[in-house]
Amino acid sequence: MPMNPDLEKERQGGTFDVEQLTHILDGGRDKTLKRHFLEQEVLKDPVFRGPDTRFLSREELFGELLRKHVAVIKKTQELSIDDINEASTIYSAAMNNNVGPLTLHSVAFVAPLDLMADDEQKKKWLIPAKKYEIIGCYAQTELGHGSFIRGLETRADYDVNTQQFVLNTPTETAIKWWVGGCVAVGDIGPKFGFGGVDNGYLCLNNVRIPRDNLLAKTGKVLEDGTYVKPENPKVVYGSMLGIRAALPKVGAYNLSKAVTIAIRYSCVRHQSEIKPGCGEPQVLDYQTQQHKLFPLLATAYAFHTVGVWMLDFHSTVMNEINEGHYHRLAEDHVLAAGLKAVINWKTHEGIEICRFSCGGHGYSLASSLPVIYVNHVANSTAEGETVILLLQTAVYLMKCVIDLEQGTPLDPSVAYLDQSFSKSEQWCSDVDMHSLLKAIQFRSKKFTEYVSSFVKKELMATGNQQLAFNKHKVILVECAKAHTEAVIMNAFVTKVDEILQSNPSVGKVLSLLCQIYGVTEILAHSGDYIQYEYLRKIDLDNIQDQLFKLYTYIRPEAVLLVDAFDFHDEVLKSILGRYDGQVYENMFKWAKASPFNKQDQGTFRKYIQQLKQAKL
Amino acid sequence: MPMNPDLEKERQGGTFDVEQLTHILDGGRDKTLKRHFLEQEVLKDPVFRGPDTRFLSREELFGELLRKHVAVIKKTQELSIDDINEASTIYSAAMNNNVGPLTLHSVAFVAPLDLMADDEQKKKWLIPAKKYEIIGCYAQTELGHGSFIRGLETRADYDVNTQQFVLNTPTETAIKWWVGGCVAVGDIGPKFGFGGVDNGYLCLNNVRIPRDNLLAKTGKVLEDGTYVKPENPKVVYGSMLGIRAALPKVGAYNLSKAVTIAIRYSCVRHQSEIKPGCGEPQVLDYQTQQHKLFPLLATAYAFHTVGVWMLDFHSTVMNEINEGHYHRLAEDHVLAAGLKAVINWKTHEGIEICRFSCGGHGYSLASSLPVIYVNHVANSTAEGETVILLLQTAVYLMKCVIDLEQGTPLDPSVAYLDQSFSKSEQWCSDVDMHSLLKAIQFRSKKFTEYVSSFVKKELMATGNQQLAFNKHKVILVECAKAHTEAVIMNAFVTKVDEILQSNPSVGKVLSLLCQIYGVTEILAHSGDYIQYEYLRKIDLDNIQDQLFKLYTYIRPEAVLLVDAFDFHDEVLKSILGRYDGQVYENMFKWAKASPFNKQDQGTFRKYIQQLKQAKL
Repeated sequence: MPMNPDLEKERQGGTFDVEQLTHILDGGRDKTLKRHFLEQEVLKDPVFRGPDTRFLSREELFGELLRKHVAVIKKTQELSIDDINEASTIYSAAMNNNVGPLTLHSVAFVAPLDLMADDEQKKKWLIPAKKYEIIGCYAQTELGHGSFIRGLETRADYDVNTQQFVLNTPTETAIKWWVGGCVAVGDIGPKFGFGGVDNGYLCLNNVRIPRDNLLAKTGKVLEDGTYVKPENPKVVYGSMLGIRAALPKVGAYNLSKAVTIAIRYSCVRHQSEIKPGCGEPQVLDYQTQQHKLFPLLATAYAFHTVGVWMLDFHSTVMNEINEGHYHRLAEDHVLAAGLKAVINWKTHEGIEICRFSCGGHGYSLASSLPVIYVNHVANSTAEGETVILLLQTAVYLMKCVIDLEQGTPLDPSVAYLDQSFSKSEQWCSDVDMHSLLKAIQFRSKKFTEYVSSFVKKELMATGNQQLAFNKHKVILVECAKAHTEAVIMNAFVTKVDEILQSNPSVGKVLSLLCQIYGVTEILAHSGDYIQYEYLRKIDLDNIQDQLFKLYTYIRPEAVLLVDAFDFHDEVLKSILGRYDGQVYENMFKWAKASPFNKQDQGTFRKYIQQLKQAKL
Repeated sequence: MPMNPDLEKERQGGTFDVEQLTHILDGGRDKTLKRHFLEQEVLKDPVFRGPDTRFLSREELFGELLRKHVAVIKKTQELSIDDINEASTIYSAAMNNNVGPLTLHSVAFVAPLDLMADDEQKKKWLIPAKKYEIIGCYAQTELGHGSFIRGLETRADYDVNTQQFVLNTPTETAIKWWVGGCVAVGDIGPKFGFGGVDNGYLCLNNVRIPRDNLLAKTGKVLEDGTYVKPENPKVVYGSMLGIRAALPKVGAYNLSKAVTIAIRYSCVRHQSEIKPGCGEPQVLDYQTQQHKLFPLLATAYAFHTVGVWMLDFHSTVMNEINEGHYHRLAEDHVLAAGLKAVINWKTHEGIEICRFSCGGHGYSLASSLPVIYVNHVANSTAEGETVILLLQTAVYLMKCVIDLEQGTPLDPSVAYLDQSFSKSEQWCSDVDMHSLLKAIQFRSKKFTEYVSSFVKKELMATGNQQLAFNKHKVILVECAKAHTEAVIMNAFVTKVDEILQSNPSVGKVLSLLCQIYGVTEILAHSGDYIQYEYLRKIDLDNIQDQLFKLYTYIRPEAVLLVDAFDFHDEVLKSILGRYDGQVYENMFKWAKASPFNKQDQGTFRKYIQQLKQAKL
C-alpha cells in the first residue's frame, strides 16, 4: 500500500536521523538489529497468527492469549534467548497490547523462588518451574486486605507433630483474591482489562503443607517451630523491588505507543479551516492539538530515559547487595516507589488524552487506545498503590530533613536538598533545560522544608508520628510528587547533555522536548513559584510564550520523533497509528470483518418485530 | 441481609434529613414518590430480569439490551408516561449502566422530525416513528469529518426531471461512520463502551430520495431545485441544542453514581493503621482518601444543580423561540456548550479517581465503575468535542469584551464581566461561598481581558481573525473554562442560598460542599490569583487549611450525602456500592457465577499440556 502523502511529507522534514535516535533508545545499534530480527521471527511464524483479539469474548480471548503465550515461550527457548529485554520483544510482538496468562508465573513465581529458595528447594521447584512442568501463581492479596500486609488474615499454623503448616481462610475477608496467574482455581470475574489473565480466588480449609515448603534461603522455621530470622531482613525486601523498578519503563512504553498513534493520526486527519478557502489543515497544526500531544511526547521521552536509568540503578544496587552492601537499598526503594507511582499515573492520564485527541475514532477499538488504556491502568494500583508509594517517598524526604539538620550526608538523588537556591535571574522566553531543572529542584526543596515544618509542629503537639503524618498526608503526597519530578527532570537533562556531545542533531531535538517537559511542569505549579518568590509574573508569561514557540519547533519533528520509537505495525496494532497512514480504508476493512456484521440477525429482528406489532 | 455495621453507624450520624435532600434533588416529594413507583414497576416485572450484562460478549450484550429496551418502550407506553424524566427513570432502572440500542432513534430521529418536518411529513414519518413502526438512525459523521460540518463530502444532487435527490459517497473518507442507532446496516466494530449501540457505516451509490423527503418545516427545495431559506435560520440551530443542554445533568448523574460507590465502599473498607494497636480505620478516615472523594462529592452536587438550571434555561429559551423571540439563543448555545464540555470532562476524570480510590476491586467489573466510565467517556467527544465547544464559548467571551467597550449590555450569565473587583479582604480560614464565587468570577474576568488583549494584538498584526484565534487557542480554551467555572459556582451558590432559607439543616451541609467546590477551584489556579494580585500567599495558606477542615465537617455526613442521591441497588448495579455494604460476600458470589468458572477447561489444559511436554 502506498504511503499516505501527509506522512510522506512529514518524513521528508526534520533535522535529525531517526535511525540514530532509535539506536539511542534501544541502547545501541546492535540491540535495534537484534530487536528487528526477533520481531521478524515472530511475525513470519504462522503460529502467531490468529483472530483479531479485539473481536473476542472474554473466554475466547483467554484461550487465544494462552495459545500464543505458549508459542512465545517455545519460540524464546528455540532461539535460546536469556536476556529479559529480548524475551520481552518476542512477547510484545506476539501479544500486541494484551497481557499473557503466564506472565505472573515468571514474574511472581519463578522470580521469588530464584531469590528466596535454598539450594534443595531450587532443585525441587525452580528448575521444573522454569521448564513450565509446574505452573505457579501468587496469592497475597485477600478480599479485605491489599497494601497493608500485616493485616492479612489467612492463617498458617505450625503443627509440630507432623511438621506441617496448616493453612486456613478464617473469614470471608481472608479469601485470597486477585491471585495472579492461577490456572485451575476460581476466576474472580471480568475486569476492566487483563482479560488474558485469570486472576483467581482461593479458599483454604486445613490445607497441609510440609515445613520445608517454606522458602528458606534466608529465614526459616525449625522443626520445633522456632522462626529463624534472615541474617539481614533487607534481602527479602530488596528482592521484591524488581517488578517495581521495571514499571517506570513499562509506563514509558505504553505512553510511547499512545503518542505514536495520536501524532501519526493527527497528521493524517484534516479538519476545519484556519484561513477560509485555504483547505483543511492537518489537525496537528492546531495549537490546541499540539498542547495536548507535545507535552506527552516530551513525557514519553522523559519517562523512557528515567525508566532506563532506574533499571540500571536497581541492577547496580542488587549487585552490591549480593556482595553484602546494603547502603543504597533505601534509596533504591524510594526511587522505584516514587517513579512507579508518578509515571504510571501520568501515563494513564496521558493515554486517555491521546485517545481523546483522536476524536470519535479514538473510542473505536480500531485505534487500540482503549485496549492500551485498560491494560495499563492496573499499574497504578497493582504492585504498590499510588498514594501509598508516594507516602513512602515522603517519609524518606522527611527523614532527609532531619539528616540535614544533623549533618548526615544525603543520598545522591536527594543531594540537591542541601543546595542553596537564590531567586532565579529574570527569565526571557528561551530558558535552558538546566535552569528549568534548578527551578523544579528548588520547588521540591521548599516543599520538603515546608511540609516538614508542619509535620514537626503536629508531632510536638500529639507526640504521635502516625497521627502527625495522617493530618498532613495530602501535602506529603504533593511533596513526594515534587521530588519525583526533580528526579525525572534530572535524569532527562543528564541524558540529553550526554547525547548533545555524542550526537548534536539528535541532542538538539531532545533538548527541545526536555524544555517542554520542564516548562509544563513549572507552569502546572506556577502558584508555588510565585509564592516562594523564585519566579515573577513576567517569568511565567515568558515561559508560557516559550512553550508555544517550542511547539512550533517540534511540529516538523513530531512524526519523526514517534517513528524513532520504532513500533512495528503488528506491535502497535492500531489502525489510526499505521506507519503508512492509510487509516480510512483500513478502518472500513476492519469494520467489515467484525463478527457482529456476520452473525445471524434473527434474534434482533424478532425483538424489533415485537415492537412494531405492539401497537404503541 | 443485615446492614454492614460501619454503614449502619454512618447512617446514625449526620445533621440533616436525607429524604428531604432527596426531594430537593428530585424537584419535590411527589417526584421522588413517582420515581420510586416507576422503579418498582420495572424491578418487579420479570421481563426485566436477565443475565448479568457484565458477563456477556458484545453480540450477547447487544441482543440482551435490545430485548430490554423493547420492554422499556412497552412499559413506558403501558404506564402512559409522557414526561421525559419519568421515561428515563424506567430506562435507567432497566438498563443499569448501559446505553440501549434504540436511544438514538428517539433522540436523533424522532426529535428532529418533530422540530423540522412540516405537517404532512409528520403524518408520514413522525407518527409511525413514535410507534416504532419505522426505526430511524442518524448519519452525519463521515470517516473523514466530524465536527466540521461544512467539510462533509457526501453528495445530494438534485435531479429536476425526477424531482429526486441523488445521494452518493464519492470517496472513502465520505463513508458515513458512527451512524447512531442503525439496525440493518454495517456495524463499525467494537468500541470502548456503548456495546449496546450498533453504530454503523453507510455507503451510498446513486440512492434516490424524493424531493419531499427533505424536512420542510423551515427551509425547503422547490420543484426547480431552488433552495428557500428558513425565515429565521436560527430555528434549525436552536433545535440541535436539546441533547447538548441535557448533557450536563447526564454528567452529574454518572459522577453521582461513581461517588456513591466510592464513598460507601470507603466506609466498609478498613486498611492499615493510624495509631498502632488501635485497629484499622475505615479508609475514608484518611485525609488522602477524603482529598480524592470529597471534592468529587461536592462536584457531583454542583453539577446536578447547574444541570437542572441549564435544562430550565434551555426550556425557557425554546418557549421564547416558539413565540418568535430569539434574543437569548446565543447565550443558551454558549452556556450549553461550555457546561457540556467542562462537566463531561471533569466527570470522566472524576469517575476514574473514584475507581482508583477503590483500590484493586475498582478494576473489577463487580464495582461497575469501569462500565460507568466507558459508557460515559463518549460524552466528551460526541455531541460536540470538548475543545471545539470551549472555543465557541471563548469566541462569545471575546465578543463580550467588544460589547463592553461599545456599551452594549451583556447577557445575564456574563454580566459579572462588567463588575469591578477590588483586591479581596484578607482571607481567614473560613471564607464563605459568596467570597469564593467572587474570586472565581474575578479570575474569569481578568482572564477574558488578558486573552482578548492578545487576540486583538494578533488581529492588528495579521488582519485575520481565524489566524489570530489559532495562535491563542490554548489560552482561549482556558478562558472558556474559567468562565464556565464561574457559571457553575454561581448556580451552586444561588441554589444553596435558596435552600438555606427553606431548609437550614440541608442548606448548611450543602454550603460546606459549595465551599469545598470553590476552594478546590481556586487552589487549582493559585498562580493566577497571586499574579493578578487578588489574593496573597497567606490567603491561599488559609483556604488550604479551610479545605482540610471542611473535610472533617463533611466526613460524618458523607454517606448520607450519597444516600440522598437515592440510587436503587439495581440501578447502581455495583457490589462495592451496595446500600447494605455487604461487599465481600457478594463479590465472592458474583465471581462464582462468572461463566468463566463454568466453561469447559479442555482447551486451556491442552495448551498447558503442550508446554509441559515441550521439554524446555
